[in-house]
Amino acid sequence: MTTKPSDFYFPNPRSLHYCTQCANPLARIIPPDDNRVRDVCLQCGSVHYQNPRNVVGVIPIWENKILLCKRAIEPRYNTWTLPAGFMELKETSAEGALREADEEAGIAGIELGPLFSVIDVPSAGQVHIFYLATITQPELNPGPESLEARYFEFDAIPWDNLSFRTVSTTLEHYLADAKKGQFSIHYYSLDENH
Amino acid sequence: MTTKPSDFYFPNPRSLHYCTQCANPLARIIPPDDNRVRDVCLQCGSVHYQNPRNVVGVIPIWENKILLCKRAIEPRYNTWTLPAGFMELKETSAEGALREADEEAGIAGIELGPLFSVIDVPSAGQVHIFYLATITQPELNPGPESLEARYFEFDAIPWDNLSFRTVSTTLEHYLADAKKGQFSIHYYSLDENH
Repeated sequence: MTTKPSDFYFPNPRSLHYCTQCANPLARIIPPDDNRVRDVCLQCGSVHYQNPRNVVGVIPIWENKILLCKRAIEPRYNTWTLPAGFMELKETSAEGALREADEEAGIAGIELGPLFSVIDVPSAGQVHIFYLATITQPELNPGPESLEARYFEFDAIPWDNLSFRTVSTTLEHYLADAKKGQFSIHYYSLDENH
Repeated sequence: MTTKPSDFYFPNPRSLHYCTQCANPLARIIPPDDNRVRDVCLQCGSVHYQNPRNVVGVIPIWENKILLCKRAIEPRYNTWTLPAGFMELKETSAEGALREADEEAGIAGIELGPLFSVIDVPSAGQVHIFYLATITQPELNPGPESLEARYFEFDAIPWDNLSFRTVSTTLEHYLADAKKGQFSIHYYSLDENH
């Protein structure tokens, strides 16, 4: 495979320089029949569209407690978050949410519940999608992206040390709905993610 | 700009060959701390993640009629569709849905309503998001992606000539909810888009 250390690698940035099909330098132009500037290869014709990414996650509940994970990765290292991450190809948002719960917390048993929140974060080029989830077997085995996974009583959520506004607002909506005893789907836009 | 004809250009495929940062040939490996094969540059370290794309659209209603557009583009040229298209960076899903309505139908006046459907299409690597919308000024000015835009009575929807299952199932849910007089949010997965 490769002998490079893990910190050698980085996510491909939004700023593109060369064509993925023929390696020619890309031009920033508005293609014919389009109305936005794109990264376009004038040699082979490939238009490198870029679109928002989905972040999918769960609100995992065990006996009136909520499971949060402490991030072992940047951004927001050492802050508490709901299990969530980038949706992958070949999975549904629900499958991705369960996958992230498994990767980040290693919950022994979990059942996915209804869709709960759909949050646009245009400044980050993201849409966040959270599902309710009921934990059926509470043993945890956090993965390398988590320093720790822990159950919190609703009145002990570490509000001052949460990772993202998508997480804090989703938790606020969850607690408000739990108090009402009725859960609905929440969709809204946040101007920034941090 | 460029003198190439519009059919010279094509969307960058999911199959990538060269690094967008340094033009080096890409390797298909599982990067350190990851569990999936990615297109990775072993020269500069850029990991070319690929993720599902969101398609955003509206269900545009004018006096108990529904507006559909006949596609002037592939795939599914010459079939009827709800106004929808790929969500862009720097916009919310709601803004994107209204933008697509404007680009494809050129509706003189439209007001966005509630979120209506969230549809996973893992085989296409897409999530489709539709909003209800009320047309306030019915004049139309279809753009180059539409052969035609037309209002249909609910009992005259061209079921045999719709573009995608995301469109037909969204219309089915809409009509069922309209009959009940109560609209809710529908989320589900389709195994294929066509």
